[in-house]
Amino acid sequence: MKRISILGSTGSIGTQALDVIEENSTEFSVSAVSCSKNIALLCRQIEKFRPQAVCVEREEDALLISEKYRNTEVFYGDKGLKEIASMEDCDMVLNSLMGMRGLEPTMAAVDAGKDIAFANKETLVVGGELVMAAVKRKGIKLLPVDSEHSAIFQCLQGSAASNVKRILLTASGGPFRGYSAEQLEKVTIDQALAHPNWSMGKKITIDSATMMNKGLEIIEARWLFDIPAEKIQIVVHPQSILHSAVEYRDGSIIGQMGVPDMRVPIAYALSYPERLEMGSSMESLDLFSLKEGMTFYPADRDVFRTIDLAYEACRLGGSYPVVLNGANEVLVEMFLAGRIRFIDIQNTLMKVMEEHKPEYRLDMEGILEQDMRIREKMRNMI
Amino acid sequence: MKRISILGSTGSIGTQALDVIEENSTEFSVSAVSCSKNIALLCRQIEKFRPQAVCVEREEDALLISEKYRNTEVFYGDKGLKEIASMEDCDMVLNSLMGMRGLEPTMAAVDAGKDIAFANKETLVVGGELVMAAVKRKGIKLLPVDSEHSAIFQCLQGSAASNVKRILLTASGGPFRGYSAEQLEKVTIDQALAHPNWSMGKKITIDSATMMNKGLEIIEARWLFDIPAEKIQIVVHPQSILHSAVEYRDGSIIGQMGVPDMRVPIAYALSYPERLEMGSSMESLDLFSLKEGMTFYPADRDVFRTIDLAYEACRLGGSYPVVLNGANEVLVEMFLAGRIRFIDIQNTLMKVMEEHKPEYRLDMEGILEQDMRIREKMRNMI
Repeated sequence: MKRISILGSTGSIGTQALDVIEENSTEFSVSAVSCSKNIALLCRQIEKFRPQAVCVEREEDALLISEKYRNTEVFYGDKGLKEIASMEDCDMVLNSLMGMRGLEPTMAAVDAGKDIAFANKETLVVGGELVMAAVKRKGIKLLPVDSEHSAIFQCLQGSAASNVKRILLTASGGPFRGYSAEQLEKVTIDQALAHPNWSMGKKITIDSATMMNKGLEIIEARWLFDIPAEKIQIVVHPQSILHSAVEYRDGSIIGQMGVPDMRVPIAYALSYPERLEMGSSMESLDLFSLKEGMTFYPADRDVFRTIDLAYEACRLGGSYPVVLNGANEVLVEMFLAGRIRFIDIQNTLMKVMEEHKPEYRLDMEGILEQDMRIREKMRNMI
Repeated sequence: MKRISILGSTGSIGTQALDVIEENSTEFSVSAVSCSKNIALLCRQIEKFRPQAVCVEREEDALLISEKYRNTEVFYGDKGLKEIASMEDCDMVLNSLMGMRGLEPTMAAVDAGKDIAFANKETLVVGGELVMAAVKRKGIKLLPVDSEHSAIFQCLQGSAASNVKRILLTASGGPFRGYSAEQLEKVTIDQALAHPNWSMGKKITIDSATMMNKGLEIIEARWLFDIPAEKIQIVVHPQSILHSAVEYRDGSIIGQMGVPDMRVPIAYALSYPERLEMGSSMESLDLFSLKEGMTFYPADRDVFRTIDLAYEACRLGGSYPVVLNGANEVLVEMFLAGRIRFIDIQNTLMKVMEEHKPEYRLDMEGILEQDMRIREKMRNMI
């Protein structure tokens, strides 16, 4: 029985992970769940999965839950997240937090020797070097949950890393694929939130629309698979059937395909190296039903400037990725609040990167400080 | 240095294998080469690769070569093939013979403890049970070279066999994809020999046109991967980019892609589990250049009846696959000689299967006898 703590259990990944756990209840149990504000759903999860501990964002919610569930340990805030990420009666932490606030709980889990199912790319974007060094030192497994990175990880099984020539990171292209720069200027929040293939949280949906999500994924892949960014190629593939692929030095390309359903990569991370029987709840990919087949295009980097920004931040290293990510997190919030236009996200990011005075060899404190500083700057800027 | 004996070195697979060996001359040497009648090419191969032994079909050619190359051991005939398949100074036998005459040399290689790079599907069609039992007993590796089976083998790396749900065996569909039964009645030898994607020998090219090749591949896969035929699905994929795939029980499909170039599966069998650096001689697959994308269709079993015949032979077992294969080998020869029409191949096979009185639990002698008997019957029939 693998005991799992879920950071972010009321989000899209968290709820789907609980579906997988529920269907495989002889193999998994839930040690802890956490959310920021969706207390109603969290209560239902507590009643169903009977976790030992929970964590919420605010103290008042913690008090409320303490009273309602007297046998449950209740934590709150960032400190609470670190507690449930490193609690004793737990074998694996599913990190499905949103944004770089997942960094500290990730490090807490690694330090406590927990395996991690990882769905929090911003953490590797800002702290990849730090986290991966700790992962190596502790000998734990950091298993990707992002569909693309899970695909790459699956395609790397059974071949030595030295045989890899290139990673093909697929992208649906998002709702604005084929748009011109002028067209991007006029898009609305609702348009940006309407992703063609995947049902996800708001932050990642906007990142998909700006293509920043793909940029962040390049940096995540760079750290997860220890491969330079220039060996990672973005392949726009509107059908989201091929979830990514690895090209080997003999010319062979191994790809992972399937219906766009996050339960597949979640299940693989939870059960690796075995594969769970997904049974009738999982639709089989029907290749014959693909109307236009599987198609592939290069990314339009002239329109979606976020991609080059990410390659550049990855190449330059140091505080560049921290600043790119921090600025982006604030800008997405501002866009969702209706305070800036869609196109302002990438325009501002270009300006921020250009003006940035980098620092190198950042420790945890340095990362947090750089992040705080850029967020402050962003709030003053707009 | 891996020392390789090549059975069928002047054929399509043999010559491409020698190209791979030549490009990786620090890793491989050639112990032996063999051919049936292309003595001129064989001589060039002897001069270039300096094998210790050679084998030809006819005694008179053997004498000729003996005089010309006094330091080379020369064998001939079926007995000679068994000699070079089991010779001492050899680590791996590449069996790229055509037809079930590869059965005895395969068994000789297995008995001598050699690993085998295997490109001779008819041998597993007629003797799968016998060969695989010997492979297991001897603990040798039988590594597939057929592009589809190499793809499946690559996609099985890193996952337990118990996780496999289904094999997707791709097929280009051959030159007559989309034809009606009536249209098949009028096709010519030249049309049947014009394969759209792969450059191969004549026998396999005709088998591709009748779809019998795919039928034989189902039976081959059944033995290579120890999976029942009903879990093997044929997927017609005209672009020949996805070379086959494996669906796992969690809904994940792992596929192997690449340009249609037999050097890739040949190299993988020679170097497994490593992958050779193919460098500039190997064109990278350019997904962006695929005009109509990758498309997939079910096989038309009403027109290409060979597929159901193969499933049935596989299901029934015993002498059925031997007879199906033996009859097919003779019929393809007769078609190439202009003695029968294209459609007569499958029509005759249906009749032969229907009339066959099966025998079970065949040993080597039983297989050879069944094969001889059906060939004789075919010659009298037409």
